[in-house]
Amino acid sequence: ISSKLPNVGTTIFTVMSKLASDCGAINLSQGFPGFDCDPELLDLVTKYMKAGHNQYAPMSGIPIFRERIAEKTKLVYGVKLDSETEVTVVSGATEALYAAVSAVVKLGDEVILFDPAYDSYAPAVELNGGKPVFVPLEMPDFSVNWNRVKSAITDRTRLIMVNTPHNPSGYVWTTKDLNTLAELIQDKDIYVVSDEVYEHITFDGRKHLSLLTNSLLRERTFVCGSFGKTFHVTGWKIGYCLAPPQLTDEFRKVHQFLTFSTATPLQYALADFLAEPSRYLTLPDFYQEKRDLFCEGLKETSFKFTPAQGSFFQMVSYGHLSQEYDYDLAVRLTKEIGVASIPISVFFSDKKDHKILRFCFAKENKDLFIALDKLQNIK
Amino acid sequence: ISSKLPNVGTTIFTVMSKLASDCGAINLSQGFPGFDCDPELLDLVTKYMKAGHNQYAPMSGIPIFRERIAEKTKLVYGVKLDSETEVTVVSGATEALYAAVSAVVKLGDEVILFDPAYDSYAPAVELNGGKPVFVPLEMPDFSVNWNRVKSAITDRTRLIMVNTPHNPSGYVWTTKDLNTLAELIQDKDIYVVSDEVYEHITFDGRKHLSLLTNSLLRERTFVCGSFGKTFHVTGWKIGYCLAPPQLTDEFRKVHQFLTFSTATPLQYALADFLAEPSRYLTLPDFYQEKRDLFCEGLKETSFKFTPAQGSFFQMVSYGHLSQEYDYDLAVRLTKEIGVASIPISVFFSDKKDHKILRFCFAKENKDLFIALDKLQNIK
Ligand SMILES: CSCCC(=O)C(=O)O
Ligand SMILES: CSCCC(=O)C(=O)O
Repeated sequence: ISSKLPNVGTTIFTVMSKLASDCGAINLSQGFPGFDCDPELLDLVTKYMKAGHNQYAPMSGIPIFRERIAEKTKLVYGVKLDSETEVTVVSGATEALYAAVSAVVKLGDEVILFDPAYDSYAPAVELNGGKPVFVPLEMPDFSVNWNRVKSAITDRTRLIMVNTPHNPSGYVWTTKDLNTLAELIQDKDIYVVSDEVYEHITFDGRKHLSLLTNSLLRERTFVCGSFGKTFHVTGWKIGYCLAPPQLTDEFRKVHQFLTFSTATPLQYALADFLAEPSRYLTLPDFYQEKRDLFCEGLKETSFKFTPAQGSFFQMVSYGHLSQEYDYDLAVRLTKEIGVASIPISVFFSDKKDHKILRFCFAKENKDLFIALDKLQNIK
Repeated sequence: ISSKLPNVGTTIFTVMSKLASDCGAINLSQGFPGFDCDPELLDLVTKYMKAGHNQYAPMSGIPIFRERIAEKTKLVYGVKLDSETEVTVVSGATEALYAAVSAVVKLGDEVILFDPAYDSYAPAVELNGGKPVFVPLEMPDFSVNWNRVKSAITDRTRLIMVNTPHNPSGYVWTTKDLNTLAELIQDKDIYVVSDEVYEHITFDGRKHLSLLTNSLLRERTFVCGSFGKTFHVTGWKIGYCLAPPQLTDEFRKVHQFLTFSTATPLQYALADFLAEPSRYLTLPDFYQEKRDLFCEGLKETSFKFTPAQGSFFQMVSYGHLSQEYDYDLAVRLTKEIGVASIPISVFFSDKKDHKILRFCFAKENKDLFIALDKLQNIK
């Protein structure tokens, strides 16, 4: 069989999580919480399972769940969506991204991806016959250089994939970013897929600006979100896509044949859980404490860093300490000092090493303290 | 936005289930059980959620779950699979089908589909740039005419999609079917995707013959299965794909970017539940009772039918009673007599009406009795 994705090996998240587990290391690599969700959420799942909600959910999602997602969007962003025609529940943000790309990208279409980017974007584009066009982010802050975006746009550009707050850097888009993007594409036949899974995790009073909040962008954007990141249940694989009716129509046509629908009892439980907005509105404070704690500790190490603006990841630079390839260093730190991280070269299209590691601080404080203590040994 | 799937409207399953619910009709349309699963299975989900199994499962599935699926395959088909390299857990059989098609089909490849077929096959092929080539099944028994298959094969044929037991007809492939397919493709670069979601639902002593049981087919087949159909939890969306290591490699590359992984607590629960083989080995008897009950009742109606060989669907012919379009009749029966069914024209590539309706008998006996009573009014 000749491979359609010859360059895809085992994902770094699997590699590092397995190595961490084999070495008994503290796993600050793969992005998932090291603590559990609210027990009330679990009780809700049990309740709905026992009440017999175990057969197919509607293809687009349980109506009350879609309605609650629309209410959240109104409350947080002041944007009113029609839950019937603009909200679709899917099996995780990964499916949302894939279905949105599939809905838009045709053979030979160019898709602008910022570089570095999450590892599923380019394969999603390629499997749909599209051509990824990489626009490097500005170092060292991973902001967008809009002149580069402008130069990358051609007649064949059909889609731009955005990610804010950004993984792995934590960079949070500004009003200026949104406006500039809107301006660049307003008179062109270009759509946007916006990965906003860390929407509720921003720091130092910063607000996440959903692309929905810009009326020009809203007309052509598929916003992809996830409850895994927001409610500490990354393993449940429930996400959603917000898009205007015409785009939602096309999105659902694809979703219908990709997975059809998403686990029914989990949808009912999350619908109930969402009824209390404090459950997501408190998330910035919850993670601010962990980011601060982690950054305080990092000051005692020899790494250089700028505190993350958002997401639950913190990058650190080590180029002044060693010229080791970031992947090799990440493996060595896991084996020798017992702390696993992600080498960010894996997020770059050319796998170039920028001497940066990414640590996930969505972990118990205890584990963060121990990891920080170990990291002090790196000189 | 120009549609990549211009011919896809709202799925018939959504349309009929909604109509049934709006009319208070007995819903024998969409294929899902009208009763709940074993409460022990639900308790297992609760147990594993509470034990903290709510973060990402491994991309290919929880190891013990994959192992149990391999044990089932050994027990039922006598085929020994390596759970590490040949078994992948996915978010429902729909995802298994889509990922398998995506792994194989390249632009311009021809894919042989039997006609009628489940509604996701052709869109999956088309979204991947392939060209569906329809081979009509033989009426009235929906068996395969192998001469037609032979004539349909060209140099560009890359894949054949098989479904046994067949939806909507219940036709179960014979040893001769397997052997003939193997013979036809053995010296060609052709793969097979086999939808076997009704593998445990066969009647009158018939055995489902998985394509895995033919050694030539096994080398080139992706077998797609589902726990939704087997354990009465269609809403959980957990399925699997069985394929040789090289095909599994390619399958996983796609799955990784489609959904990445599948609901963790449901995987753990199903793994435990599978440990007791009687839970699936008793399924033929369980459904035989329902098929027999339904067919006994049908004898008192004016419909013509041949009892289904497998699946939980029973087709009936009404051409001797009326020339009404099957879709119109299905809608009318739902509204006027309160029994919803599926018009099988929707499964045909040309939507041609064969004057056949499909009833799902995976329902409480009580509901089957009431529906049958109502169906006696059709003359
Ligand atoms: C799907 S595993 C990867 C989780 C994640 O988002 C990350 O670690 O970047
Ligand atoms: C995914 S809804 C369709 C269920 C089913 O398999 C059928 O009714 O044929």
